[in-house]
Amino acid sequence: MSTAAAAARPVFFVSDGTAITAETLGSALLVSFPGVPLDRHTIPFVDTADAAAEAVATITDAAHAAATDAPPLVFTTIRDLAVRQRVAAAPAIVIDLLGGHLREVEAALGVSAQPGRGTVHSLGDLDRYHDRMWAIEYAIEHDDGQSLRALDRAQVILIAPSRCGKTPTSMYLALQHGIVVANYPLTDDDLPEGRLPSDDLPRPLRPYADRLFGLTANPQRLAQVRAARRPESTYSSLAQCTREVRWAEDLYRRHGVPSLDSTDRSVEEMAAVILASLRRRTASEREGAQR
Amino acid sequence: MSTAAAAARPVFFVSDGTAITAETLGSALLVSFPGVPLDRHTIPFVDTADAAAEAVATITDAAHAAATDAPPLVFTTIRDLAVRQRVAAAPAIVIDLLGGHLREVEAALGVSAQPGRGTVHSLGDLDRYHDRMWAIEYAIEHDDGQSLRALDRAQVILIAPSRCGKTPTSMYLALQHGIVVANYPLTDDDLPEGRLPSDDLPRPLRPYADRLFGLTANPQRLAQVRAARRPESTYSSLAQCTREVRWAEDLYRRHGVPSLDSTDRSVEEMAAVILASLRRRTASEREGAQR
Repeated sequence: MSTAAAAARPVFFVSDGTAITAETLGSALLVSFPGVPLDRHTIPFVDTADAAAEAVATITDAAHAAATDAPPLVFTTIRDLAVRQRVAAAPAIVIDLLGGHLREVEAALGVSAQPGRGTVHSLGDLDRYHDRMWAIEYAIEHDDGQSLRALDRAQVILIAPSRCGKTPTSMYLALQHGIVVANYPLTDDDLPEGRLPSDDLPRPLRPYADRLFGLTANPQRLAQVRAARRPESTYSSLAQCTREVRWAEDLYRRHGVPSLDSTDRSVEEMAAVILASLRRRTASEREGAQR
Repeated sequence: MSTAAAAARPVFFVSDGTAITAETLGSALLVSFPGVPLDRHTIPFVDTADAAAEAVATITDAAHAAATDAPPLVFTTIRDLAVRQRVAAAPAIVIDLLGGHLREVEAALGVSAQPGRGTVHSLGDLDRYHDRMWAIEYAIEHDDGQSLRALDRAQVILIAPSRCGKTPTSMYLALQHGIVVANYPLTDDDLPEGRLPSDDLPRPLRPYADRLFGLTANPQRLAQVRAARRPESTYSSLAQCTREVRWAEDLYRRHGVPSLDSTDRSVEEMAAVILASLRRRTASEREGAQR
């Protein structure tokens, strides 16, 4: 193991901001090279000549320490040309993720790029930022049906049996997209064997039926996930999981609730589907209002 | 307003996955063109010929509906060549964010890119994914000092006076980076005028002094933020905010707690600084253990 780790190719994500863009695109590229052992590092906030010199020193050290002759790979998203050129002088293969595309966008828009603009993950529009922070607090307060206060402000209410992914998906929608989202459990953790709730929507949700989005899961997988929490329980039995999932799917169908199987999907993928559903609903509400 | 909106240039982020990478890099590029009115759309999961045809139809409609003759701008991250070429046939300027760089990475690594690999935001490594989901639950359970259970498992404990950004920063670290993070309020919301807690670290945190990270804020800004929540209160008075911030800064200094002013920083920027601090600490702990 240690020789394999030592032979790993150093990879750096270097940026004048948080390095989120460099990490995101760099990782999207590296996923196509699964067999190559990599040793990843992130160097954020490289926005001065001094910071660039420090980054180059770190990259140089890594190049010497690595048990491979191949030079480190460096992905950069640095706007300032002088700073970018200093980093490009590192003993490494440096791939500039912004520069070339910036020229393409300039040509497409017929406008010159403005130098020195804040990066995309800095504060930016304060009102939008505060809306996003408020959405996070709302999501925490409205996690797992804990609060019904101001439920009318929710843009989306996620519903599902326990352990289908409501909580992380809500947090993701709030944090990354500023969506005002509540989530509500369809079944109790201590439902007695064989018992299921009524076939109606839970009473607090009925005024908001058009904002619901349902999650389901494969019963086998759900049973595994529940067993990690409460082994050998009714809650985690395959029979109970199967019953709850079937019942939830019926409920979604009966009440026209759009839904999604969370089994093989990441929170990012679920959020993308839920956002697309929300956009469709908002567009059709707007059309309805215009008519 | 409506004519300005109508003249906005349609921009599409089109991807075979969640479109997070396309949105992230596309937005990082567009931030350099602040004067151009844009009408942004995201089309995720374009991974078949049919989905590509549907995307092209949507882009074509937008091109016709826009009150500008300039063609839409389309940022794509699509791996499959045939699907990518179908989207490239849209009546738009299409910028491929992956393709060119993939050739650069192939040359740098001396390895061919594997086609058809999962995208970076799909489930991927299940164990790592479950660790991240667990970190989110931990962060919610340990928000604002609500629970002291398993505090020894926290990698980072954020401390700060009320409203300095502990909660959103914790959620971001957990959700995006899988960091096990708790946060703990240094001052009560209903601290009587002029009163401050002791100069010692709060008792439950003392065993974990090396994992603490402190946040501060500009007292004026803090007073504004608090006033939005509880106007005309001691809690939101400038005098009280100033006292609490000074006291917290002294506490950090006295106990050697690394800290950060949250005033002009986004959660993404704070998370990047905290991660860098965590990496330095982990590296020096490792060095210490090896000696």
